[in-house]
Amino acid sequence: ACALSLVFHSRSPHVPTLRGDVRLFELPERGELWFGGGADLTPFYLDEADAQSFHGFWRRLCGRVLGPDEGDALYARCKRTCDEYFWIPARREHRGLGGIFFDQMRELRGEVETAEYFAREVAAGFLTPYLPIVRRHWAQPVGGAERRWQLLRRGRYLEFNLLYDRGVRFGLAQLDKVMVSAPPLIAWEYGPAASQPVREDEALLEVLREPREWAFGAMDGEIVEFLEDD
Amino acid sequence: ACALSLVFHSRSPHVPTLRGDVRLFELPERGELWFGGGADLTPFYLDEADAQSFHGFWRRLCGRVLGPDEGDALYARCKRTCDEYFWIPARREHRGLGGIFFDQMRELRGEVETAEYFAREVAAGFLTPYLPIVRRHWAQPVGGAERRWQLLRRGRYLEFNLLYDRGVRFGLAQLDKVMVSAPPLIAWEYGPAASQPVREDEALLEVLREPREWAFGAMDGEIVEFLEDD
Repeated sequence: ACALSLVFHSRSPHVPTLRGDVRLFELPERGELWFGGGADLTPFYLDEADAQSFHGFWRRLCGRVLGPDEGDALYARCKRTCDEYFWIPARREHRGLGGIFFDQMRELRGEVETAEYFAREVAAGFLTPYLPIVRRHWAQPVGGAERRWQLLRRGRYLEFNLLYDRGVRFGLAQLDKVMVSAPPLIAWEYGPAASQPVREDEALLEVLREPREWAFGAMDGEIVEFLEDD
Repeated sequence: ACALSLVFHSRSPHVPTLRGDVRLFELPERGELWFGGGADLTPFYLDEADAQSFHGFWRRLCGRVLGPDEGDALYARCKRTCDEYFWIPARREHRGLGGIFFDQMRELRGEVETAEYFAREVAAGFLTPYLPIVRRHWAQPVGGAERRWQLLRRGRYLEFNLLYDRGVRFGLAQLDKVMVSAPPLIAWEYGPAASQPVREDEALLEVLREPREWAFGAMDGEIVEFLEDD
């Protein structure tokens, strides 16, 4: 097995958290081999242009690997898997705006090589859609109320990791290594402390409860119908 | 079922965290009823006098309920259960200095009434051994290096709660209520950030790896032998 995993916990609450990973599991004696990976975005404030450019990048990447039609289906599948995976049942919230996620992928279009090519492209693409988002937001002024919201939202991130993430549960024997994925500073509040000023984002919370399509527009009739049917 | 649960997350790293709870489960149609509860201390810096006075209080309380000999055995059992319960396998550390913990206690000395009396006494005693500890430490000066150590150690507290605590896993459907037990601010660090000044306590870490006896001295020959045998 080998894996590459990264997470950026931004200091600024206006810059989203980025997580990405790729992994390869191989059992040569059984002739088994599969790929997994993905990338997803967890903002503290909803910026629809960010969500669209991030998801649009992954949709186009899938199209480069499989051609436009099969690519759209691949993206749609990976997008949905991502939404399903980063779900916190106890909060009835998704962790973020999603992205793509795939697991136990042995082949694409019947070819191991294409699956490997896809995994490699995903890994090579982690930063491409993220850096423009960082540049758009990093210099925005930050007040205490935004910072507080960021620390509280990071609590959700950690709740997901410790309560549900397969990677964390799988890596428990080396918890110190797994916990490098934790945000550096996190807050939980309740009662009187929770009444301090905080700049929430109700629009974000709405998307976390009910994921939206970001890369498909009204022009993408068939694939959107396929998504709605299922 | 009814339960009372409390946790004090101290602002000062010189004041330990205190957790206590009592609970009663009853299934009248099956004639089942049992008590549970306990109290434990989680300091950031080891103060042996604190550990001794805290554990000494619970030992004496057990003695008041059952008399000195049976009381010592009850305390020793509850102390060991507490050490076993607040154990983070992935860190090979206990969460704190322990205290007492009991669960599914139907009777004491063959009497439901005595078990209930014990549970009531435990609940009534939460603050008695804690307040003198708070008074001894609350005014000690705090620097950034102590504060940082506190935030890092709180991470262990939360890891235990989310990864292992039965109360949290039992209460997942109401995670917001369960998470009031979380410390208000927590840090995880690694890499270059982890090289900032921090005032660790190696003596504390040693006790967390290998719990000690705090309430029994060399004069308590038999009970100490019993503990060592088992």
